[in-house]
Amino acid sequence: MSSTWGNNIKISIFGESHGKAVGVVIDGLPSGEEVDEEKLLDFMKRRAPGQKLTTGRKEADLPHILSGIYQGRTTGSPLCAIIENKDQRSRDYSNLKDVPRPAHADLTAYFKYGQFADMRGGGHFSGRLTAPLCIAGGIAKQILERRGIFVGAQLFSVGEVEGRSFRRADLSLDEVLSAGRREFPTGDEETEDKMKELLGEVSSQGDSIGGSVECAALGFPAGIGGPMFKGMENEIAQMIFGIPGVKSLEFGSGVEATKMRGSQHNDPIEIEKGAIRTKTNNAGGINGGITNGMPIIIRVGMKPTPSIGLEQESISLSKMEKEKLLIKGRHDPCIAVRAVPVVEAAVAVVLLDQWLGAGYGFKRA
Amino acid sequence: MSSTWGNNIKISIFGESHGKAVGVVIDGLPSGEEVDEEKLLDFMKRRAPGQKLTTGRKEADLPHILSGIYQGRTTGSPLCAIIENKDQRSRDYSNLKDVPRPAHADLTAYFKYGQFADMRGGGHFSGRLTAPLCIAGGIAKQILERRGIFVGAQLFSVGEVEGRSFRRADLSLDEVLSAGRREFPTGDEETEDKMKELLGEVSSQGDSIGGSVECAALGFPAGIGGPMFKGMENEIAQMIFGIPGVKSLEFGSGVEATKMRGSQHNDPIEIEKGAIRTKTNNAGGINGGITNGMPIIIRVGMKPTPSIGLEQESISLSKMEKEKLLIKGRHDPCIAVRAVPVVEAAVAVVLLDQWLGAGYGFKRA
Amino acid sequence: MSSTWGNNIKISIFGESHGKAVGVVIDGLPSGEEVDEEKLLDFMKRRAPGQKLTTGRKEADLPHILSGIYQGRTTGSPLCAIIENKDQRSRDYSNLKDVPRPAHADLTAYFKYGQFADMRGGGHFSGRLTAPLCIAGGIAKQILERRGIFVGAQLFSVGEVEGRSFRRADLSLDEVLSAGRREFPTGDEETEDKMKELLGEVSSQGDSIGGSVECAALGFPAGIGGPMFKGMENEIAQMIFGIPGVKSLEFGSGVEATKMRGSQHNDPIEIEKGAIRTKTNNAGGINGGITNGMPIIIRVGMKPTPSIGLEQESISLSKMEKEKLLIKGRHDPCIAVRAVPVVEAAVAVVLLDQWLGAGYGFKRA
Amino acid sequence: MSSTWGNNIKISIFGESHGKAVGVVIDGLPSGEEVDEEKLLDFMKRRAPGQKLTTGRKEADLPHILSGIYQGRTTGSPLCAIIENKDQRSRDYSNLKDVPRPAHADLTAYFKYGQFADMRGGGHFSGRLTAPLCIAGGIAKQILERRGIFVGAQLFSVGEVEGRSFRRADLSLDEVLSAGRREFPTGDEETEDKMKELLGEVSSQGDSIGGSVECAALGFPAGIGGPMFKGMENEIAQMIFGIPGVKSLEFGSGVEATKMRGSQHNDPIEIEKGAIRTKTNNAGGINGGITNGMPIIIRVGMKPTPSIGLEQESISLSKMEKEKLLIKGRHDPCIAVRAVPVVEAAVAVVLLDQWLGAGYGFKRA
Repeated sequence: MSSTWGNNIKISIFGESHGKAVGVVIDGLPSGEEVDEEKLLDFMKRRAPGQKLTTGRKEADLPHILSGIYQGRTTGSPLCAIIENKDQRSRDYSNLKDVPRPAHADLTAYFKYGQFADMRGGGHFSGRLTAPLCIAGGIAKQILERRGIFVGAQLFSVGEVEGRSFRRADLSLDEVLSAGRREFPTGDEETEDKMKELLGEVSSQGDSIGGSVECAALGFPAGIGGPMFKGMENEIAQMIFGIPGVKSLEFGSGVEATKMRGSQHNDPIEIEKGAIRTKTNNAGGINGGITNGMPIIIRVGMKPTPSIGLEQESISLSKMEKEKLLIKGRHDPCIAVRAVPVVEAAVAVVLLDQWLGAGYGFKRA
Repeated sequence: MSSTWGNNIKISIFGESHGKAVGVVIDGLPSGEEVDEEKLLDFMKRRAPGQKLTTGRKEADLPHILSGIYQGRTTGSPLCAIIENKDQRSRDYSNLKDVPRPAHADLTAYFKYGQFADMRGGGHFSGRLTAPLCIAGGIAKQILERRGIFVGAQLFSVGEVEGRSFRRADLSLDEVLSAGRREFPTGDEETEDKMKELLGEVSSQGDSIGGSVECAALGFPAGIGGPMFKGMENEIAQMIFGIPGVKSLEFGSGVEATKMRGSQHNDPIEIEKGAIRTKTNNAGGINGGITNGMPIIIRVGMKPTPSIGLEQESISLSKMEKEKLLIKGRHDPCIAVRAVPVVEAAVAVVLLDQWLGAGYGFKRA
Repeated sequence: MSSTWGNNIKISIFGESHGKAVGVVIDGLPSGEEVDEEKLLDFMKRRAPGQKLTTGRKEADLPHILSGIYQGRTTGSPLCAIIENKDQRSRDYSNLKDVPRPAHADLTAYFKYGQFADMRGGGHFSGRLTAPLCIAGGIAKQILERRGIFVGAQLFSVGEVEGRSFRRADLSLDEVLSAGRREFPTGDEETEDKMKELLGEVSSQGDSIGGSVECAALGFPAGIGGPMFKGMENEIAQMIFGIPGVKSLEFGSGVEATKMRGSQHNDPIEIEKGAIRTKTNNAGGINGGITNGMPIIIRVGMKPTPSIGLEQESISLSKMEKEKLLIKGRHDPCIAVRAVPVVEAAVAVVLLDQWLGAGYGFKRA
Repeated sequence: MSSTWGNNIKISIFGESHGKAVGVVIDGLPSGEEVDEEKLLDFMKRRAPGQKLTTGRKEADLPHILSGIYQGRTTGSPLCAIIENKDQRSRDYSNLKDVPRPAHADLTAYFKYGQFADMRGGGHFSGRLTAPLCIAGGIAKQILERRGIFVGAQLFSVGEVEGRSFRRADLSLDEVLSAGRREFPTGDEETEDKMKELLGEVSSQGDSIGGSVECAALGFPAGIGGPMFKGMENEIAQMIFGIPGVKSLEFGSGVEATKMRGSQHNDPIEIEKGAIRTKTNNAGGINGGITNGMPIIIRVGMKPTPSIGLEQESISLSKMEKEKLLIKGRHDPCIAVRAVPVVEAAVAVVLLDQWLGAGYGFKRA
């Protein structure tokens, strides 16, 4: 039941990379919410391949909504949307069944499922499964935006190259949304240029590189979440680690907090225009698992793309002996690039779930 | 329901810092498991105050087991254990009700619960609630150790001072357990000395400082966990962010992975003495949410203790105007120090839950 | 995790009949709700022994609240209440360990837990565990009553003797509450007399007898619940079968519906004083898992008390051969009598859970 | 999240009667389980329309499996199967939007979802949604049968006409499976004839009638389930009330138990060929929520088909005044007839879920 998530909505993601389709069921959406399919498609395109510097595989990635929407609005019944898999070049992967790819789930899937998992193209562990997550997130974003809640993400770093961080109390809505408006998901052209240069270099070496994504949510009400195990951080964390390749998650000041003094880190409380806020935002919008009304800010660290064009050491499972492995085909040199809208989607799903759980969004006849 | 957690066991933690008692119910433990109360108490003492450089408040922290154990073994019915609150100097906190302490949950608890939360001493948000988590974790550790699964943690850093990291493939069981055997939870004396010097300096300034804890699990079977939302990382993450003050969580190579090349990061797969393993352990023992049999390694970043002895800026909720705040009483300068066994407990609880979910540990008449 | 329940609150019940205490944790209660402990105690007394015709065992059954209440109101943090076990005549049961009692859980507990379950007095399977359920239910009732939602139950039948059924559209609040006000939980004295006569007869024979409880809820809002698996019927059903001895559950017309024509059974829809209602209430207040605003009506069938004073056939587990069994001690001849407030409590807990899940009851600062 | 269910598997059902498709996601199936699609289809046909005496609407009801099966076996990843809706005569229902049909969910869906629910043909509340439940149940049955666990159901009663009950300790596997092999789902021809006569009579009057279904499971291991809220009865109950039209549920002796003496009802424990069993089976295979190894036996009472051909009283929601309603189209006179395989499916899903939760069915490489 590892692919089902949620407290107040349940999302259930299914599909294998080279199977018939991938998709999602979202159970528990409030009724009467407009879903703009055009806008959803625009959001989906942000993670879709076909852009330069990302994998060559072409996918239409058009979601077909099978249920839960009637006359452009949610019915309140479960929404199911699927994306058919059209371009299934499974021959690229055919030799990999016996030789697990390092840093992939091939070996662990074998440990758990025996030889029965369909691991062609990464199977259910493939990055392709983030497409249905983006459907859920794209719909969540529309519902939240209608209430003035905005979620945006940016590619913060590729290797050592860093952009301008969201970790500031004066973060503006425009900044939060800017990467989403650009073709390459950074906040500015200068950062884009530096990152692209590095990506080109890494790519030409047949190698890959890590990176990180920052995400912020503005306008989310204060007082949502809870202490201990099911608060805002716990739920965001549980969801974010569902994105393949995530190695670290930071809230607000994050890892930097471990090096700070309390006198620097504690966010002074103040009143501005009658509203309670904090002067700085090291908390990242959350104290004790509950939102304080300030921007929610996270940073997500992602490992380098595991599929590289260089020879690697592995084993043959059938022979139980060493075997060299060379993975063919083109791959994104940095998974963090395409992960930007995915992180946005993941956060939006959690925020919607928590917002509903706090008694918001109910309609009654 | 924010204080209830688990898939195959349910732990439910209750209590407020200055109420009658704190405690935990653990529902779903296998029957027939020996619980050594002496050993449990030894583990509890590792987080208990009374040690130098930690808070002056004295607590017996003796857990009383009310149910679920009969003749020294688990019955299979829910285990409830409570710790009575004896030393309740609530006067220390009495003036804080109107003036929320920066970086505490005072303000967010007010947003969520109105004026009704019992926030004396931090209420249900207090670090004291990690004591019942340690009861659950201590019992989980005993069950796991009987099967050769060991969980250990160490204070990895205080401010800029770092010890020797667990992030190595050659990590030994002895290293993993060493901090737990020492009074100050580092792996060696040299690190201890440096950290204590820094803690003393920070403390004398009335300030506090952040730090980080590393935790490793050895001997955990391969093939446990799952993809997407309820795998090993997701569950560990959801639980770890239940510890007050956690700002970041890293698996294996963690944040460093964002700066690495795939050719460095991908752990080569090899066979050693007939067993499949990886040469390096950047994965931290987990691929695709499923364990690979290598040590599970995490790093947990914690913010500086929010209660400091320096004057801070806050507001009066009743007057809705600025108010200076000076928190009296003694506090740990670095919450990461006492968090070491708590992280260990948290991880043990998750591992037990996942281990049971993978069909281990069943007894049948 | 079989003793933990809930979607929007989590109740976690613990304890064994002859252990130190039984109790409950309720996680997720809204904050600021008054809890009248006197009133709670009055409710608890309705199920407590010491009444004529029920078991001779004396229990104070005084709940001690350990957390979650401050200055008479819920804090929003988990509420834990325990009842200490004082009168533990475990000698009555000492000979039963090897010889499972027919119609008890002795044998199945042995199948599941091996010899480790603490089955003295029925252990965690004892009817005594309905006391903590009554704590949860008593608190739920207070929260609901403040909003005009009333839950009441009555002993509908003992053997063939039946009282006046709640299965009517013209059911009044007074009728629903009347059994709760009387010492013997029927709606009228005539029924009481007949039932008592039968109970006396059965008791004098050392035998026991089955019975049934009816419960109704008035004032619950329309539009709460949902289709398929987590609607009103599903949730009430899951909870009700948690009461030891329940063999059947009926909603509205119940089993009678199987013999009716659609033209009789379909409740005509009408408008009365501007409000939509139905002329009859065969639906028992629920259609498609969602409340329609009419009284919610259930009937719960309970088996005869399994402990009887007559010799029974069983086996010795150690010798694996036939063994006669004679259970000593006094027992209620009919468990349905004491189950009346328990059913009420169970229904109240479900209604509170569903009511919160529909966005009611939130407080915000 | 009302359409998502399960503890160790999660089934998530979606679709509306007149939408594009209905379907199910099953998350958590063990890997390597053969799924015989031919056999699944045969099972599906047992609930499909087109049979005499059931509704005239024709559906292919062919499930398309989109994921989770590879080379004829489960992969361990979520299985999604959909059934396209082909015959969507929504004009039959077009006039019903303003006038809620008595005993349907029209009114309660309006209360919960406002005017946004897609209630054409009953929408997500339609009996058509039992088709995806049968997919899940059909697959569960195949997994269980491979281990010698068999689930069978029969139409026990239509109105006053009753067949031979499963409520006997000497129930044979052949009897349990016999109704499933016949076109009309009773155990014998005589019962079939009497029921058909009654159904014909009711049908010719434009009316409908209630009925009941019995279901039994043989070969299920002892020691599975648990006390209180998540035991065998609770889980079966929660699931069974997910079938539209269910009004009552009985285990073992059921409602009869309320009229029995303990000396009759208590099942004597005995040893037969070295195995522990009970002489009678009033318990229906379950004590204290845990299986005892005897047949699990339930009876499910269903109301008359709510759609009848006679004029009924309702209201116009827009005008808020009385309105007569005449439902056109042909309908099954008794929903219990087609519910037989649905009850079987529902029970099989619960048994699989519980069986997995007890540590059965794991595969490891």
